[in-house]
Amino acid sequence: MTNKSRLEKEKIIEVAADLFGEKGYAATSIRDISQALKVSIATLYYYFKNKEDLLFTIIESIGDDLLVRLKEARDKYEDPMEALREMLSRHIALTEKKKNMVKVYVVEQHNLSKRFKKIIYKQHREIYDVYIEQLRRLRDQGLISSEPLSVTAFAIFGMVNWCYRWFKQGGRLSINDVTQRLIDMIFYGIIDQKTPTSGKEP
Amino acid sequence: MTNKSRLEKEKIIEVAADLFGEKGYAATSIRDISQALKVSIATLYYYFKNKEDLLFTIIESIGDDLLVRLKEARDKYEDPMEALREMLSRHIALTEKKKNMVKVYVVEQHNLSKRFKKIIYKQHREIYDVYIEQLRRLRDQGLISSEPLSVTAFAIFGMVNWCYRWFKQGGRLSINDVTQRLIDMIFYGIIDQKTPTSGKEP
Repeated sequence: MTNKSRLEKEKIIEVAADLFGEKGYAATSIRDISQALKVSIATLYYYFKNKEDLLFTIIESIGDDLLVRLKEARDKYEDPMEALREMLSRHIALTEKKKNMVKVYVVEQHNLSKRFKKIIYKQHREIYDVYIEQLRRLRDQGLISSEPLSVTAFAIFGMVNWCYRWFKQGGRLSINDVTQRLIDMIFYGIIDQKTPTSGKEP
Repeated sequence: MTNKSRLEKEKIIEVAADLFGEKGYAATSIRDISQALKVSIATLYYYFKNKEDLLFTIIESIGDDLLVRLKEARDKYEDPMEALREMLSRHIALTEKKKNMVKVYVVEQHNLSKRFKKIIYKQHREIYDVYIEQLRRLRDQGLISSEPLSVTAFAIFGMVNWCYRWFKQGGRLSINDVTQRLIDMIFYGIIDQKTPTSGKEP
């Protein structure tokens, strides 16, 4: 694929995600997408077989994006606490930067056929495994005693992926404030135990 | 409405929520619902104006259910920590007992028209306020120092409402195990600070 084609494909993914996010997948037609982009329907079919293929590509690409960010974050620090902090920080940043893609990922996944779902579930598993391995590192150093780690990982996913529903850009709280607060809550909970605060900015 | 009518209406809501949850709202027709229930389409239109009215009723009823449970839990204990623990416990129990309704609530809300959305947003606000008031009680007693409480409340919603996606009935973990673990995580976080564990079962 040429550079121009790649950029055109990315633009289609972005605009389709905005439309699916705002109007819903079922209510958005290929024609709506072509009109919003000011490109022909033939152009859309050059890149995507059909609307479901486009939905799959959106969901797969936000998952890939998350995986890349998580692995980069994990490898950035030797200290497993710092690495987990960085993973959470980048995960939260993604829910802000790509709000509509995250929304489509959460609410429209059930529209995929079995074949596509299988690929996405495999990707979910990879994301889950990156978190589980990191939590295991913390446990092996005696930093967390919580078991099972699976519940911890799912609790983190819920807390972080939910951000697309309530975080408002330009609101009273910056994404940095929210990130700091969510990480403190994951690490230390809400009950004041007169313990040291986390200290470092994400 | 007679008792028989009320029961029939509840049954329709339950079966429709299962179908919307499993196949998705867009892919489920009024005919599918009538066939699953073995009642006539006319019967469905006796209780509901159209499919959207049915969707609205499902979403409104799970929200009402949650509100009732949260207020009961709040009023059960004088101690604000115990009351919050009970609220969380009942909220998590609802996501297990009415998994498909919670799923519809999370993923199909965007299909509602403005008029219905307005009512549902008002209900969201009530649920949010019940949590915020409870968190404020804890703060006033010096039990939590976390600010802003809004982020804490949204983090709790994410963590708890996400359960419908991963909790498996009959799996290795019981809902009680999961509830205990999630509440401990909300209260004390995942980092081991050699603090007392929560002690009481939910």
